[in-house]
Amino acid sequence: MVFSERELIDWLTARAPRGPEVALGIGHDAAVVRSPAGDGLVLKSDQTHEGVHFLRGEQPWGKVGRKALARVLSDIGAVGGRPVAALCSLALPADVAMADVRALFDGMLALAAAHGVSLVGGDLARAPSGVAIDVAGLGFLDGRAPMRRDGAQAGDLLVVTGPLGGSRASHHLEFEPRWRAGVALAASGVVTSCIDLSDGLARDLHQLTTASGVGARVDAAALPLRPLGAQGGATVAQALHDGEDFELLFTVAPHAFDRLARVPALAELTPAVIGAITPGPGVRLRAADGREEALPRGGFEHRFGAPDDR
Amino acid sequence: MVFSERELIDWLTARAPRGPEVALGIGHDAAVVRSPAGDGLVLKSDQTHEGVHFLRGEQPWGKVGRKALARVLSDIGAVGGRPVAALCSLALPADVAMADVRALFDGMLALAAAHGVSLVGGDLARAPSGVAIDVAGLGFLDGRAPMRRDGAQAGDLLVVTGPLGGSRASHHLEFEPRWRAGVALAASGVVTSCIDLSDGLARDLHQLTTASGVGARVDAAALPLRPLGAQGGATVAQALHDGEDFELLFTVAPHAFDRLARVPALAELTPAVIGAITPGPGVRLRAADGREEALPRGGFEHRFGAPDDR
Repeated sequence: MVFSERELIDWLTARAPRGPEVALGIGHDAAVVRSPAGDGLVLKSDQTHEGVHFLRGEQPWGKVGRKALARVLSDIGAVGGRPVAALCSLALPADVAMADVRALFDGMLALAAAHGVSLVGGDLARAPSGVAIDVAGLGFLDGRAPMRRDGAQAGDLLVVTGPLGGSRASHHLEFEPRWRAGVALAASGVVTSCIDLSDGLARDLHQLTTASGVGARVDAAALPLRPLGAQGGATVAQALHDGEDFELLFTVAPHAFDRLARVPALAELTPAVIGAITPGPGVRLRAADGREEALPRGGFEHRFGAPDDR
Repeated sequence: MVFSERELIDWLTARAPRGPEVALGIGHDAAVVRSPAGDGLVLKSDQTHEGVHFLRGEQPWGKVGRKALARVLSDIGAVGGRPVAALCSLALPADVAMADVRALFDGMLALAAAHGVSLVGGDLARAPSGVAIDVAGLGFLDGRAPMRRDGAQAGDLLVVTGPLGGSRASHHLEFEPRWRAGVALAASGVVTSCIDLSDGLARDLHQLTTASGVGARVDAAALPLRPLGAQGGATVAQALHDGEDFELLFTVAPHAFDRLARVPALAELTPAVIGAITPGPGVRLRAADGREEALPRGGFEHRFGAPDDR
């Protein structure tokens, strides 16, 4: 039996013990746990594996280490958390030089310092084959209600915080995690749902609409396409289906958007209204000529298990 | 250049950004971060890799999953934390059956439920080769000061919470994490240092004495040797050098120990005084006949880098 990431997560969600201090559990970009005094604690871990998320020799070690942490800061921001601390678990095969390990950590620590994040611990082990990095992050909500994936309402605008597509050229190694925008969105109190774009707009939008029990319409002409230098810009297909944009996708009622767009942490980015939430079901793409068609999930999903699996 | 886990940790400790909310950073069993309202948050991640920490087919998947979480609960307890929530990052190669993945999680979730720990999230990915598990845990100090590795004083008793040695037979897969004892030890306010025994008594004791700037004397005759069924019991050498006992090793002034030993969470275990802290330097082993010799670090340490490394 071949099973998808989503199927395993659904199975886990039904079984995982969940105490009263859990405000947001499995199924959101990050979890939220209440401390005894009531502080909202945001928790997330993210893996970066050689051979899956990076190839040795193709990406500089410093950028690999940076990305491993940046992914977690992006997830923490997507629920409105201010990242504070991180743990790094690192498994190293025998043939990785100390200079490369230092470069990896230099990249990670520089990003941590730039974002006010303390590296407080983790775990080192020998890896049987490829380098494995897992970063766990802690953030604080500072009194904000966490943003969720399941609150989008028909009629809401669909907004992204920046350009999409063509991330593989370099953006996936150099992106700035949008947690400051996430904090501002959560603080506004008017954002109805939010998700960070890691698996491709179409796929992540399906996650959001499915969780919210709504549909959506994406306007192809409104998609902000990433400039890619001499290569021109990303195509609409890339903007829809490439992963690792690490922008935030959020929903907000039209009457609340104008004021929200003037909030500094958002105004300094290039937010774009790319469509709207519909009663659904389904996600549709409206072409420049006004014709609409279904927008399939597409994007990237890990699949597990062998075809001859029991 | 071949480099040790300790050398890399020292290098990291000097460079890692550390904000004012960090009460305990790199170099202890777990980190402690203060929440905005002042709650003590305990954080720790621990890796379990196929081919390093377990062999597929030799250990049941349920016990592998159980152990991956139990190691984290042990670390959280060693600083006095009550474990509350966990994240699991899991990387799966193509040839792992869904039934085995479920068994892994069943073992982990059963331990979580038994200890009041919520599984709140994590990350799933395809692994290039072996199964990689990284569990990150959150605990609360509930007003207790965290126990540290660096507070042992000459004259303190050296105490372990249970039997040592021969863990490989089965104990390493079935141990009960001693966080309830850790909570009681921290709450007592009289424990001067604590560490969980994962890398072997001799090695972990060296960590504690080095951090505290003291020495220690271990009485061989006082070591509680693990019964191993038909195989008899663990040897003194095993008690000193086998890893994965996952008992707590702590130090306390002699006058404070009698009362401490009557605290229920400790009295229900079989704590044993195995020696004393000395002015040092160095750790010495006293044989049953009274003769003393130096006790080398021994035990297990990951080493990284190739001999021809730059």
